[in-house]
Amino acid sequence: MLSSPSLRLRDGAEFPQIGMGTWKHNGEKAINAVYTGLQVGYRLIDGACDYGNEKECGEGLRRALADGFVRREDVWVVSKLWNTFHHKENVKEAVQRSLSDWGVSYFDLYYVHFPISLKYVSPAERYPPGWYVDGKSKVEHDPAPFRETWEALEELVDLGLIKHLGVSNMCSALLMDLMSYARIKPSVIQIEIHPYNVQERAVQYAHSQGLQVTAYSSFGPLGFRELHTPKSLRTQPLFTHSTVTAIALAHGATPAQIILRWATQRGLAIIPKSDTEQQMRENLESARITLSEAEMQAISGLNVGLRFNDPADDFEGCHIFS
Amino acid sequence: MLSSPSLRLRDGAEFPQIGMGTWKHNGEKAINAVYTGLQVGYRLIDGACDYGNEKECGEGLRRALADGFVRREDVWVVSKLWNTFHHKENVKEAVQRSLSDWGVSYFDLYYVHFPISLKYVSPAERYPPGWYVDGKSKVEHDPAPFRETWEALEELVDLGLIKHLGVSNMCSALLMDLMSYARIKPSVIQIEIHPYNVQERAVQYAHSQGLQVTAYSSFGPLGFRELHTPKSLRTQPLFTHSTVTAIALAHGATPAQIILRWATQRGLAIIPKSDTEQQMRENLESARITLSEAEMQAISGLNVGLRFNDPADDFEGCHIFS
Repeated sequence: MLSSPSLRLRDGAEFPQIGMGTWKHNGEKAINAVYTGLQVGYRLIDGACDYGNEKECGEGLRRALADGFVRREDVWVVSKLWNTFHHKENVKEAVQRSLSDWGVSYFDLYYVHFPISLKYVSPAERYPPGWYVDGKSKVEHDPAPFRETWEALEELVDLGLIKHLGVSNMCSALLMDLMSYARIKPSVIQIEIHPYNVQERAVQYAHSQGLQVTAYSSFGPLGFRELHTPKSLRTQPLFTHSTVTAIALAHGATPAQIILRWATQRGLAIIPKSDTEQQMRENLESARITLSEAEMQAISGLNVGLRFNDPADDFEGCHIFS
Repeated sequence: MLSSPSLRLRDGAEFPQIGMGTWKHNGEKAINAVYTGLQVGYRLIDGACDYGNEKECGEGLRRALADGFVRREDVWVVSKLWNTFHHKENVKEAVQRSLSDWGVSYFDLYYVHFPISLKYVSPAERYPPGWYVDGKSKVEHDPAPFRETWEALEELVDLGLIKHLGVSNMCSALLMDLMSYARIKPSVIQIEIHPYNVQERAVQYAHSQGLQVTAYSSFGPLGFRELHTPKSLRTQPLFTHSTVTAIALAHGATPAQIILRWATQRGLAIIPKSDTEQQMRENLESARITLSEAEMQAISGLNVGLRFNDPADDFEGCHIFS
C-alpha cells in the first residue's frame, strides 16, 4: 500500500504531508473518494462544514472502518469552522454538528476557515450556511474578536473534541497577533499556494512560528475553473504550462506530480482532490520524485502573486488579503 | 495664505487633507520646515517617535506659536507609538515622552506606527529605540496582543492626552479584528499609497469602516532613494514617468502636484515632505487641479502593488504584509 511522508507538529504528532481534499466532491462521489482514498493509503481527509459533504465523507470513512483496513486512530479527520459560527456561543454547536455528520467523536485537526465573522444562521434554517445571510446575495457581518473564537476552540481542545487547532486564509499580521495570546498555539495554517502564488514570506513566517503549512489549490486555476471564475478562466492552466511539462517529461512524471512535488519538497503539506483512483495513486507517488534546485526555482519563477480564492472578489466587506 | 481642504473624521472633526511629513527632516531643517510650513498654511504636522526629530519639530511649532500667526488649537500635532512600547505598561511613558519633546499637552492624532511588538528598550538607554534591541542588527520580538496596546491608548484618550487614534501599516484583516473590539474606533489609517501601490481594496475597506486614509510615500520611490534601498533605486522615478509628465504638461502643473492631486482626488489625506518653501506652496496648491477620469485611471494604471516600506525586507520576523 502507498503511504504519505509525515511532517511533525509542534506537539510531536506525525502529520500526513499528503492528504486528500474533498471540496466540490458531492454525494456518492464523496463517499467513494474517501473510501477509495483510505484504501489506496491516504491517512488525512481534509473536510469542512462549508463543503456541504461531511455526512458523505463520514459515510466513506465509516465503510472503510467497517471493512477493517484502517483504524480510526490512524486517520486524520479534518474539518473547519464556518464564518457564521465565530461567536463563542456558536462554536461548540458548529463543531458538534460536524462531528456528528462525520460520525466521529473528535477531530484530529480543526481549522478556522476564514478570519471573517458573519451573522449566525441557525443550522435548522440552512446548513451549510454559506456566505449569504439570506442564502442568495446578502453578506451580513457580525464581528467577533478572533480571540473570542479562538478561546472557544481552546475549550473544545480541553474537552477532547479537537486534537489540534489550525487557521486558514490568515495573513501573517493576524497570525502574529494570534501567537501573542493563544494559550493553545495553532499547529497548522492552510493557505492558497501554487506556482502562481508561491507565498514565500507567509510560509517562512509560519514555519518560524512552529506551524506546518498546508497548501490548498495546489493546481492553481484548475479547481476554480469548475466554478467558472473569471480569474481562473483567463489564466494559463499549469498542466499545460511549458515550464511544468518540460520538467514532467524529464522525470517521466505527470505535470500534476511535478506541481505537487514542488510543494512537498518545500516542506509543505498538500491536500489534492482526485477524481479517480489512478490520480490518487499518482498524487501519493509524487513524493518519490526529486526535483533539482534549478527545477524548483523554475517553477517558483511562475509566481505572480495571483490568488484565485479572495473573498473580497465576491463578498462585500470580506477584505482579508489587502 | 494657502490652506488645505478638510476631510471629516467619524466624530465630525475636520481633518486637514494635506499635512506636512517630517520623516528624515533633522536638526535645524526640521525646526525650519515646521515653522515655515505653519507660516505657509499647513495645519497638520505628521511626526513620530521613530523619526528622531520630535524635539526639533516641537521647536518649530513653539516658535510659530510664539510669533502668533497660528494657535495651538488650529494645528494637528500627530505622533506615532513605536514598536518597543506596545506592552500596556510602556504605552503611557512613550506618549508622554513624545508630548514632552513636542512641548504640547495632547496629540490631535496618535497612530500605532506598526502592528509589531518588539522588546522594550528604555529611553534612558537609547531614544528613539529603532528596530534593533542592541542598536545594531538584532531584532527581538516581544509579542503583545494588539488589543492590549489599543486599550492602553484608549485610556490615554480618556485622560485627554490623545484626541484621535489611528493605525498605520495595518492590513485589512487586522483592522477588521480591531474594529470588532475597539471601544474607541480608529479615526485614520496611514498606509503606503502611490501610483505603484494604489491599494484600492485597503482604501475601500477602511472607508467602509468609517476611517479616513492617509497616504504616505506619495512620491513612491523618491523618499526611499535617500536611503539607497535597492527596490527604490531600480524603480523608475514617478516625476519623470511619461504618464505623469504628460498630464503635468497638460495642466501646467509639476509632476509632484499631479501625483498628490491623484491621491487627494481619491479622497485620501496626504503628508508630503518638502525641502523648500516653494515645494510647500506647490503641494498645498495641488488641490486646485482637477484631473479627468481618464487621467486618474492612467495614473492608477501604473499600479504594480509595489511596497517600498516592507519591514520584512530588512527585519527578521516582521511579516505584516504577507
